[in-house]
Amino acid sequence: MIQSELPQPLIDDAVRAALLEDLGRAGDVTSQATLPQDATAEAVIRARKPGIVAGIPLAASAFRQIGDGLTFQPAKADGDRLAPGDMIATIAGPALNLLSAERVALNFLTHLSGIATATGAFAQAIAHTKAKVTCTRKTLPGLRAVQKYAVRMGGGSNHRFGLDDAILIKDNHIAVAGGVVEALRAAKEFAGHLLAIEIEVDTLDQFALILDLPVAQRPHVVMLDNMGPEMLARGVAMNEAAPGAPVVLEASGGITLETIASVAESGVDYISSGWLTSSAPSLDLGLDIDIR
Amino acid sequence: MIQSELPQPLIDDAVRAALLEDLGRAGDVTSQATLPQDATAEAVIRARKPGIVAGIPLAASAFRQIGDGLTFQPAKADGDRLAPGDMIATIAGPALNLLSAERVALNFLTHLSGIATATGAFAQAIAHTKAKVTCTRKTLPGLRAVQKYAVRMGGGSNHRFGLDDAILIKDNHIAVAGGVVEALRAAKEFAGHLLAIEIEVDTLDQFALILDLPVAQRPHVVMLDNMGPEMLARGVAMNEAAPGAPVVLEASGGITLETIASVAESGVDYISSGWLTSSAPSLDLGLDIDIR
Amino acid sequence: MIQSELPQPLIDDAVRAALLEDLGRAGDVTSQATLPQDATAEAVIRARKPGIVAGIPLAASAFRQIGDGLTFQPAKADGDRLAPGDMIATIAGPALNLLSAERVALNFLTHLSGIATATGAFAQAIAHTKAKVTCTRKTLPGLRAVQKYAVRMGGGSNHRFGLDDAILIKDNHIAVAGGVVEALRAAKEFAGHLLAIEIEVDTLDQFALILDLPVAQRPHVVMLDNMGPEMLARGVAMNEAAPGAPVVLEASGGITLETIASVAESGVDYISSGWLTSSAPSLDLGLDIDIR
Amino acid sequence: MIQSELPQPLIDDAVRAALLEDLGRAGDVTSQATLPQDATAEAVIRARKPGIVAGIPLAASAFRQIGDGLTFQPAKADGDRLAPGDMIATIAGPALNLLSAERVALNFLTHLSGIATATGAFAQAIAHTKAKVTCTRKTLPGLRAVQKYAVRMGGGSNHRFGLDDAILIKDNHIAVAGGVVEALRAAKEFAGHLLAIEIEVDTLDQFALILDLPVAQRPHVVMLDNMGPEMLARGVAMNEAAPGAPVVLEASGGITLETIASVAESGVDYISSGWLTSSAPSLDLGLDIDIR
Amino acid sequence: MIQSELPQPLIDDAVRAALLEDLGRAGDVTSQATLPQDATAEAVIRARKPGIVAGIPLAASAFRQIGDGLTFQPAKADGDRLAPGDMIATIAGPALNLLSAERVALNFLTHLSGIATATGAFAQAIAHTKAKVTCTRKTLPGLRAVQKYAVRMGGGSNHRFGLDDAILIKDNHIAVAGGVVEALRAAKEFAGHLLAIEIEVDTLDQFALILDLPVAQRPHVVMLDNMGPEMLARGVAMNEAAPGAPVVLEASGGITLETIASVAESGVDYISSGWLTSSAPSLDLGLDIDIR
Amino acid sequence: MIQSELPQPLIDDAVRAALLEDLGRAGDVTSQATLPQDATAEAVIRARKPGIVAGIPLAASAFRQIGDGLTFQPAKADGDRLAPGDMIATIAGPALNLLSAERVALNFLTHLSGIATATGAFAQAIAHTKAKVTCTRKTLPGLRAVQKYAVRMGGGSNHRFGLDDAILIKDNHIAVAGGVVEALRAAKEFAGHLLAIEIEVDTLDQFALILDLPVAQRPHVVMLDNMGPEMLARGVAMNEAAPGAPVVLEASGGITLETIASVAESGVDYISSGWLTSSAPSLDLGLDIDIR
Repeated sequence: MIQSELPQPLIDDAVRAALLEDLGRAGDVTSQATLPQDATAEAVIRARKPGIVAGIPLAASAFRQIGDGLTFQPAKADGDRLAPGDMIATIAGPALNLLSAERVALNFLTHLSGIATATGAFAQAIAHTKAKVTCTRKTLPGLRAVQKYAVRMGGGSNHRFGLDDAILIKDNHIAVAGGVVEALRAAKEFAGHLLAIEIEVDTLDQFALILDLPVAQRPHVVMLDNMGPEMLARGVAMNEAAPGAPVVLEASGGITLETIASVAESGVDYISSGWLTSSAPSLDLGLDIDIR
Repeated sequence: MIQSELPQPLIDDAVRAALLEDLGRAGDVTSQATLPQDATAEAVIRARKPGIVAGIPLAASAFRQIGDGLTFQPAKADGDRLAPGDMIATIAGPALNLLSAERVALNFLTHLSGIATATGAFAQAIAHTKAKVTCTRKTLPGLRAVQKYAVRMGGGSNHRFGLDDAILIKDNHIAVAGGVVEALRAAKEFAGHLLAIEIEVDTLDQFALILDLPVAQRPHVVMLDNMGPEMLARGVAMNEAAPGAPVVLEASGGITLETIASVAESGVDYISSGWLTSSAPSLDLGLDIDIR
Repeated sequence: MIQSELPQPLIDDAVRAALLEDLGRAGDVTSQATLPQDATAEAVIRARKPGIVAGIPLAASAFRQIGDGLTFQPAKADGDRLAPGDMIATIAGPALNLLSAERVALNFLTHLSGIATATGAFAQAIAHTKAKVTCTRKTLPGLRAVQKYAVRMGGGSNHRFGLDDAILIKDNHIAVAGGVVEALRAAKEFAGHLLAIEIEVDTLDQFALILDLPVAQRPHVVMLDNMGPEMLARGVAMNEAAPGAPVVLEASGGITLETIASVAESGVDYISSGWLTSSAPSLDLGLDIDIR
Repeated sequence: MIQSELPQPLIDDAVRAALLEDLGRAGDVTSQATLPQDATAEAVIRARKPGIVAGIPLAASAFRQIGDGLTFQPAKADGDRLAPGDMIATIAGPALNLLSAERVALNFLTHLSGIATATGAFAQAIAHTKAKVTCTRKTLPGLRAVQKYAVRMGGGSNHRFGLDDAILIKDNHIAVAGGVVEALRAAKEFAGHLLAIEIEVDTLDQFALILDLPVAQRPHVVMLDNMGPEMLARGVAMNEAAPGAPVVLEASGGITLETIASVAESGVDYISSGWLTSSAPSLDLGLDIDIR
Repeated sequence: MIQSELPQPLIDDAVRAALLEDLGRAGDVTSQATLPQDATAEAVIRARKPGIVAGIPLAASAFRQIGDGLTFQPAKADGDRLAPGDMIATIAGPALNLLSAERVALNFLTHLSGIATATGAFAQAIAHTKAKVTCTRKTLPGLRAVQKYAVRMGGGSNHRFGLDDAILIKDNHIAVAGGVVEALRAAKEFAGHLLAIEIEVDTLDQFALILDLPVAQRPHVVMLDNMGPEMLARGVAMNEAAPGAPVVLEASGGITLETIASVAESGVDYISSGWLTSSAPSLDLGLDIDIR
Repeated sequence: MIQSELPQPLIDDAVRAALLEDLGRAGDVTSQATLPQDATAEAVIRARKPGIVAGIPLAASAFRQIGDGLTFQPAKADGDRLAPGDMIATIAGPALNLLSAERVALNFLTHLSGIATATGAFAQAIAHTKAKVTCTRKTLPGLRAVQKYAVRMGGGSNHRFGLDDAILIKDNHIAVAGGVVEALRAAKEFAGHLLAIEIEVDTLDQFALILDLPVAQRPHVVMLDNMGPEMLARGVAMNEAAPGAPVVLEASGGITLETIASVAESGVDYISSGWLTSSAPSLDLGLDIDIR
């Protein structure tokens, strides 16, 4: 019953900006120079490496917005697994339009599929635990909404989207506020009823102060920052032993595909990684074209 | 005598969009909730890993556009090498403003420094040859101008910026035009006097056809696509043996830090890599803050 | 320790659009026609009716962005109470600039102060209870961020800012999902750890189903929709009697200044009103100007 | 034969901005979480209170721009009167799209219908006179064009749209220019042949000075500001007694539904009200939806 | 006492778009390649031909928005007459910034001064009559506001700025409405009190029908379209002979510098020319620069 | 085989901005006032003067974007020659939409056809030589891409599109760099392999220095600035006598239709004219409409 869709107006705006960036002031001069005006083409986008696809609606938008006449037929849906050689989509129509949108479509597809694939690998590595992979605000400027969508497509869960849609109290805030208890009190007072509150702790002593609070004064989420699996496990144990419902626990800091399983096995609920959106390599996809 | 600067209006537009993306509809709610209204802060941005810095003017713009009162003092300039612990810049002023712009500034700095660092590593690996590293149009949507700037800061050279500012004839164009000679003739007729022409060849037989042309009908650049070092070396030899001035040679296809030296030693002039702008990991930088 | 600030880039963008809307294609033709080119002016903005002021940073931005030379001196801060005659700000400088920005500054100030004043009246009416006033998505197109800011300035608390920053399950979602339990399960699975979940119920039977759930499967907030004070009080009692921590309760539907106290006295936590942002009348403020 | 239409590009731009404001960075997360991906829906928009409808083309644009697949069938046209229960439009198609655009469509419809309804009430109250209702520049930032359109739909007439499309000489301009005669002379000299000139007078003595001018030096419109019905009637008499064609008279200042008839009966031509666009409450409309 | 100023926000937006258009994706690569990073420059803008200057505030904006450090010192004001060699402005500061904004500043200055100069020549040719030069909507897309400003600077008067700020009834409207009387009646009913009405007539018979109307039903302006000086003079005589105040008369159609005097001597009030904004050649200005 | 097309997204953005500029805040009030709501119309666009047409895709976009229901049928294609009376296109559909887009469509068509016609006249005057007409950066702000497209449609060739897509070394750069040789060395070092280099010389002595360089250090293009036909011929002879392939020669400076043939006969390759895009008069086209 669950889906996760990027609204069409967001897709179209992101793609249009990318088309204008690539078309520059005169469009595809190479194709204008070398193709007959009535040339048509058929193209197939295929996976060259295994992975998880994301970005098909953005590719579709590129081939639609470039001008009239192209048909785009997806063979996969975002979130589908890809084996090398798998067909992702076919496009047909005027050759100039197809070539003019090709790179923008591929740049979105390879980047977002790269994020989805990396997220999927993290998720698979911890599938035997209850933990979920989540992202951060370490995204590439201008691409946050689509990158976070790709994380969802890879099986991850989204952290906050900006400075405004959740409270995340860090060490500096705690220091200025005078401690975790004081910072949480201020946050609760400010937040209203629909703004979730997370607090980052560097030590289990800080965490103990939080668990000592009455349930209504606790945060929704506690981030255990830069702790090793053992210390995380102790935090999990403290959480389960505390009176009332446990808080949600997020582990954070230097997570890699090698370390994530041991972190997850500590029993935390979420594991966040900035690497997924700042550094995951693109997925190798190819567009083979036949012009006539 | 050489510099390479990104114009201020481009910087400010890219940064403003990123600030609005992160601020969302209510700004930094955490700091609003927990900091005294008159809190001030001092921060230092430092390298955590070695590399080459890029993006300082964008960080400066973020801390300026977020609102009044912050001072930004750079300690490095774009293109400078970084050792772990090196100070990149200091910022001081209203704590709310500083924290509201921190992530945008870091997202630009870490991403662009990542590209510059990767480009620098490639450049260093071929420093004993005459070859130069160059980029492609495999960039992240909306970030092309700043990514290409980061390539320059890392010691690389820029390929074309879009579909419009150089002609790059690929296999499809050749096939439709009826061959390399016909495609080049059409391109020369179209191009005018200031649009450079590059043609991609998959075989040395195709290259031979080009070298047989009178000098005025040859392209400015020939891309030798997906050829191994040996075949590249043969191409270089053909080029040097041809009458008239040699064409510029670009090697392309699956370049890595491991393979680039052997490619460069073939004697080609440029080696292009899409990986630099689509997949280079971000450089680890940290912002340490002291709020009062 | 608590503040609540609208980020400067948001302020400046909203104000610039409003200035361009009012200036049209030729600016203030009346002042151009009738004022000497070097005319200067001094102006005072005063309250004509009692209320709560909001929008001073937007007025400041209007008088700054219109051109060089104006000084803007606030005498109040957003959230301050106003008595008739109270001075809000003074402006001085070139008369043409002052008159060209006057209407935009006043349109923001009177509208946002109207919302703040109405919110303050609601808040005062329920000050003897624990309930807080909150807003809805019934805002005026394009003005949501600034309207919600005005609600905060009036002493209210913000509901979600859009379709994306909290889950609010309504009757239609419940009907399609197959019931409150099924809808909540789907929401929990989708939401991740920082997206708050609210569900709207029309009957206390529905509410009972929710309270029967284990704590971890309950929503953060339950909206008791269109219920009278008595039924609300029964809901509050059920909530307090349920095992584990109580959920947050929001009353909604046709709230007026006359009815809000009886609603609040039922013991609910939040009372939401769409009227505040869709229909609150503007506050009467005047700008008196002296041109020389 | 008379119509009054808002151009489609203006409609689409206003609606798109409102959709992006509400969709935020992830769209309607509630519906994504709880609805089957292929769910379809039918909805009816109905009046809950009597009034005059305005904004149907904006609602249509919202349901079109949100994505493919929705059909929008209007049952009324802008300017039509509504009785409680009257059907305004039906919408059918993909449930996610319908719910994602619902609030934007309703926010435009309820706000603009509120203005049209208020304007209609004013117009009805003075239908026995020759006076017409008109608006001012006291509009909500960013909404001027659509608000003024709503005034027309309610049976009102539009005042100037900005600082640039008519000259309106106020007390300050008169004071600096040295008197009404001098200000009018400057305005006539500046205005060209298609820019209408209005002047505001506070006293009938000022008005007498204007009527003493030769016809070609008089303004098109005189605003009698803040005068009671009796003084207005004297102004009307002066106007009719003056040689040459009378000027157009506008009454202004604190007009309410209670006072407007007595103002109109004075014989003035236009009565302007800032309340219509700054403070008229929204009209209560409902969207009932059936999802399958 | 009269001035005519383009608002600063309009200036800055137009100039910024032009800067971004010229800077492209990498800025002034020539200066980046050849100038020392700390090179400074001084430049003087001078007239090479006689004329009237317009656009100085736009040039100032270009040199300000390009980046920090440039000073711009105007030696003339818009509307001033220029003799060959006259200094218009001096600029000093960083050489890269100065050269990066030079072309944009000159493109505005030469184009707008060209319009002002052409308008001035027309105005001078009819200075012995009461007629004034005015413009049309035959402007260059995107440049209307600044072109109309240049017309004012050249001593001309502005016609309407768009389809919305005055009614101009043409032959097609008359034909559909059923005649000039019917078209005027519909326009009067639609227009409200501040929208001027102009009607275009092709024959004096049509004009006679208008003059037969009661004064209150006449338009503000009648355009006598494509009539020779003699027929225009007869129209003027009819106008003066008609009872009540005469209407304003505009002559239109194929006006040139050679024919305008004879048209003006007919006694019309305004003479409109589309050539001024669609075809007037740019004025030759030069920027001499000294880099150190 | 050669075509030259402006990308659809560029067309649509330029046209939309122009429509919004002309529609203002209320659209075509004249047609709203005088036409029946269901009026339909047919229109024909015809040439009134001989020339070359350019801008048909922009006109088509205007009649499409204005709203639903118009059909646009072109009878010519951009680049076609026009005789007086030739039909360019027909449009049919709702009269209000047709009249609302008419002026924008014509403003693009007449301006761009004016440039194409002027370019065609220059090209025809030198058709007996090998020289080609080319443009400059002396374009009208905001219109560069479409103006350069019109130059191509008229048979011209495009110079660089901005400061960023080719290097053009002028006298100031040479002076600061220390001479032509030093400036060229810096440019070569900066440029990479796809950025063409042009250098401007004022004397043949400077040119001789360039021809003395090894082929690989020469620029792609040398601009012979402000030289008479005789001196140009001497430059051509020097070029042909130099060892290696000759450079491309561009003549520049004060070119008119009267002088261009003698310049071309000198044997240069390109002749550039800023007049084409800054000062070419619009081509006279008419739209005849029949409304029912």
